[in-house]
Amino acid sequence: MFSKVLLNIAFKVLLTTAKRAVSSDDDDDELLPSPDLPDTEDPIAGDPDVDLSPITEEMFSSWALFIMLLLLISALWSGYYLTQKRIRAVHETVLSIFYGMVIGLIIRMSPGHYIQDTVTFNSSYFFNVLLPPIILNSGYELNQVNFFNNMVSILIFAIPGTFISAVVIGMILYVWTFLGLESINISFADAMSVGATLSATDPVTILSIFNAYKVDPKLYTIIFGESLLNDAISIVMFETCQKFHGQPATFSSIFEGAGLFLMTFSVSLLIGVLIGILVALLLKHTHIRRYPEIESCLILLIAYESYFFSNGCHMSGIVSLLFCGITLKHYAYYNMSKRSQITIKYIFQLLARLSENFIFIYLGLELFTEVELVYKPLLIIVAAISICVARWCSVFPLSRFVNWIYRVKTIRSMTGITGENISVPDEMPYNYQMMTFWAGLRGAVGVALALGIQGEYKFTLLATVLVVVVLTVIIFGGTTAGMLEVLNIKTGCISEEDASDDEFDIEAPRAMNFMSSGMQAGLGQYSDNNSPDILTDQLAVSNNESVPDHPLPMSDNTLGELDETENAGPNSERLSIDKRNLRDKLGTIFNSDSQWFQNFDEQVLKPVFLDNVSPSAQDSVNHSPSDFSAQNH
Amino acid sequence: MFSKVLLNIAFKVLLTTAKRAVSSDDDDDELLPSPDLPDTEDPIAGDPDVDLSPITEEMFSSWALFIMLLLLISALWSGYYLTQKRIRAVHETVLSIFYGMVIGLIIRMSPGHYIQDTVTFNSSYFFNVLLPPIILNSGYELNQVNFFNNMVSILIFAIPGTFISAVVIGMILYVWTFLGLESINISFADAMSVGATLSATDPVTILSIFNAYKVDPKLYTIIFGESLLNDAISIVMFETCQKFHGQPATFSSIFEGAGLFLMTFSVSLLIGVLIGILVALLLKHTHIRRYPEIESCLILLIAYESYFFSNGCHMSGIVSLLFCGITLKHYAYYNMSKRSQITIKYIFQLLARLSENFIFIYLGLELFTEVELVYKPLLIIVAAISICVARWCSVFPLSRFVNWIYRVKTIRSMTGITGENISVPDEMPYNYQMMTFWAGLRGAVGVALALGIQGEYKFTLLATVLVVVVLTVIIFGGTTAGMLEVLNIKTGCISEEDASDDEFDIEAPRAMNFMSSGMQAGLGQYSDNNSPDILTDQLAVSNNESVPDHPLPMSDNTLGELDETENAGPNSERLSIDKRNLRDKLGTIFNSDSQWFQNFDEQVLKPVFLDNVSPSAQDSVNHSPSDFSAQNH
Repeated sequence: MFSKVLLNIAFKVLLTTAKRAVSSDDDDDELLPSPDLPDTEDPIAGDPDVDLSPITEEMFSSWALFIMLLLLISALWSGYYLTQKRIRAVHETVLSIFYGMVIGLIIRMSPGHYIQDTVTFNSSYFFNVLLPPIILNSGYELNQVNFFNNMVSILIFAIPGTFISAVVIGMILYVWTFLGLESINISFADAMSVGATLSATDPVTILSIFNAYKVDPKLYTIIFGESLLNDAISIVMFETCQKFHGQPATFSSIFEGAGLFLMTFSVSLLIGVLIGILVALLLKHTHIRRYPEIESCLILLIAYESYFFSNGCHMSGIVSLLFCGITLKHYAYYNMSKRSQITIKYIFQLLARLSENFIFIYLGLELFTEVELVYKPLLIIVAAISICVARWCSVFPLSRFVNWIYRVKTIRSMTGITGENISVPDEMPYNYQMMTFWAGLRGAVGVALALGIQGEYKFTLLATVLVVVVLTVIIFGGTTAGMLEVLNIKTGCISEEDASDDEFDIEAPRAMNFMSSGMQAGLGQYSDNNSPDILTDQLAVSNNESVPDHPLPMSDNTLGELDETENAGPNSERLSIDKRNLRDKLGTIFNSDSQWFQNFDEQVLKPVFLDNVSPSAQDSVNHSPSDFSAQNH
Repeated sequence: MFSKVLLNIAFKVLLTTAKRAVSSDDDDDELLPSPDLPDTEDPIAGDPDVDLSPITEEMFSSWALFIMLLLLISALWSGYYLTQKRIRAVHETVLSIFYGMVIGLIIRMSPGHYIQDTVTFNSSYFFNVLLPPIILNSGYELNQVNFFNNMVSILIFAIPGTFISAVVIGMILYVWTFLGLESINISFADAMSVGATLSATDPVTILSIFNAYKVDPKLYTIIFGESLLNDAISIVMFETCQKFHGQPATFSSIFEGAGLFLMTFSVSLLIGVLIGILVALLLKHTHIRRYPEIESCLILLIAYESYFFSNGCHMSGIVSLLFCGITLKHYAYYNMSKRSQITIKYIFQLLARLSENFIFIYLGLELFTEVELVYKPLLIIVAAISICVARWCSVFPLSRFVNWIYRVKTIRSMTGITGENISVPDEMPYNYQMMTFWAGLRGAVGVALALGIQGEYKFTLLATVLVVVVLTVIIFGGTTAGMLEVLNIKTGCISEEDASDDEFDIEAPRAMNFMSSGMQAGLGQYSDNNSPDILTDQLAVSNNESVPDHPLPMSDNTLGELDETENAGPNSERLSIDKRNLRDKLGTIFNSDSQWFQNFDEQVLKPVFLDNVSPSAQDSVNHSPSDFSAQNH
């Protein structure tokens, strides 16, 4: 493969150059110093073991960073190459892990320890630097209408789903180690901790594949929402389990844990939302918009503060950051200057992408550079099987539960109207259930959590989690594209709003729209394609033409109806044509839960938080999006 | 002051919340754990001294990061407030240091050590994370025409200037310690090392003040160029001096050092330029432009690679990164997609701004949180006096040298034309010399270097450097605005291109131009205001109207003449009106050195590196900038 060859050449060049640089400079700052050869002659290297000079240290960290960036470049370049050649069997993240493994092996086999020490996985680094951009970007890019309309399914999969998964994995591992075949004996609390680490599904790989294929937004939203929330839930569960480490588990612990979890989740959500609203109000009531450079820095920093504040208070930073991102996009976005809107969006995307690739490279590296890991093959196989069993036990029963809820709800509403027993389509048909099962890749959050496992079998359990995570990414991630075809999942879903393109392209020169539409066909930001409908909320009637077949005359409450139409879209495709008259009814029923909030939001919250809401919809009929932003002054 | 009150309130809230969180959660993860109270009852905190659990560690680092971000937010908010209220006596960076000092004092006085350890200055972190964005952005935002036209002055101030400064400071300190008044006895090599660390002037504070006042571009460019290059030169000098640590200094060491320095400088420059060209060619010959998300990540990463590669090879990463940034802007910029152009520009600016503020906060923090520092008041006073003396010894003689060079050159050229003895205006008049002297603030590079000082008096010298740096920033930084008025330096220089605004505003809705022009009046990016003239190079004749009083008919070589006109602008303002006829001649002479390169660049390099150069200037007369980018497809 081209990029692999490129990588190998680059690495050889790197090593040769480094050696030449070392020999020509004629000092003993070896690239990979042998720890057994302290060279006291050198004034800089002085005492290599005790007090490495900052300059020498800086050189080593330069090489470590150089290698890391080179891996990132290779991964991104491969991503480009794969997209360009329309190769979808192998994914960028799988290649990232693979590159990490190759370089990890090279570093492991090289003499010396300095670079090996530098590239070792650090959970604090992961939680404070790598994870926040991904979560923040997810919240910011989230299609809010789809997310809130599928909230019930998402919460069912995320909360009881993760709990079932963790318990099943924990039980299997506990029973296995209890059998004593590999002379490991872990406590029940430790087994549950491992269960929790292995229940965090990864949002990165699967969603970028879904983006490329433009999978049905409903399935996309459910899997996306689940994987986002269950990271947070796994973290809270893991911390709860760790509190019982070394104590006998009692039955009341479960209730204690559940109470702690619910408190954590709701307080974290509140922190995130409040900070998002704070930003919106700050932007509304100050003139900081006139200084977009300061403005964009401040927005980024305040969003991060929600994460650190929440973590610092023993709450879940992920949940806070996610909801802070959502709130920022929902309110603060409209109070920003145009330049900050662009800056924030692109920076979030860029940082998230770099972090994602970085994490997978790290996972690959870790397999070889973490020297203390203890690999127990049977335990790894058992753990790998147990995560499949656990996922099965959570996805399929819960899908039936979701279907049952929606069926009951629909029938209860319909009987009053039609008076006869009708067949309601499943909310989660079998192929969606299977795809949700398949989407259960494990990611870096699990590994980062596993670093926190205490006790005698620390490194055995860490190694197990690491290998299982890498296996799931390679196996499930590599076969997702195939499964989409096998399961006959609807792909290539381009919503009505796609024609209007990314909202920022309104400012690009016309010729650029040609280019960016080409981009979107390849690797476009799927979750963003629908985001103009949030702008539509603002513009009210002005975007009439984007809802071409609206069946009802425009009423005062245009917003709600727009949302219903969009959401009913994917559902209606699965209904047969003679049931098409059910469509609008179904749409209304499914959305009635969130309707009150949308009204409240539009009539009370937006006028308070936004700088200038389109006051009367009729006035803005002829306004283009750029005109709207002009009103914001 | 509003933001100070805000900060204090926020900090109190923070501490109270943290304490409440700790007490309500009923575990012993104290915010500031007392190291003498190991609590083995707690399953998580386990052995606090030996193996802090990742979760506890994460909580502490969350608080440390929360405090740092809060400081950043306060500094930026103060910056906004100062700009908004047009207060220019106090600068954002001075406030950053002050906030850092306040929080440093609080942390120092608090019990416990964890947060104190976390916020300790780390030179590797400074060189690898904080410094690169600032340098890269400087190179990228550099007004290339001004920079290359003043190259001679910049190089004279940067290379011999830094050398003189380091030697003078080193001599004074060596003599002072030799007198033995404070029982310190440092070697000559160490004294020279300190001299080198204290010779790196800081580009941040002074330039943001110059930006706000729109100081004459020529003075701006000279001071900017000097402070950028002398960071690199100080680093190389410091490393050279450290090699002689513990050895007797010989006379040949100076020549050895000089040779090493020149080699390092030119190789680093070459690395940077080659990597910049590599990016341009990569963008030209691939279709990566179609995927702007990958494209902007790759450009950012490859630019960073130049820094780490150069550092890893014992070259100067700063020089490489600076010239990589310049090359990127000069060639690669035109091969990027429009979206990447915007993303890269804004990201560089945002990262640079955050890094700048972060560095100054760190400096303030460091004064109190670095527990091992040894403060020697007399040594600090001597060092503070010595940097003024050293700056005086380098700026004034070298300014005369620069004036002499330009006078000789001008007279030699003019005598052939006018045949009589004429009075040539000084290239560096007295007020410019005084301002250059005053602009000699010392910055974070010095402190980062001082961390590398070895030997018995390590912490004494570090404390001295730290205090001197903070003093210069507060004293010189605080009085720069006043000095500009006292010295009667020309301010409010808006070049002809300012009317056309930032090149990215061509895509903003019209109403936004109103806003961004408001912004530029306050805190606009000065160095960028002139950058459309680089675009002008591309557009050749199409921007005719931006050169309203062009004295000559358009020839084939429009580019060169545009540059000359622009550069002659500031010169001409200092000439009396009856000497106005000299203006064009002077412009031509001063620029004749760089003329050959501009021709070569236009005729050979640009066609090779750029995707699509405007082939015949006449064809593009009616093309707007957006049309030009459309041609790039």
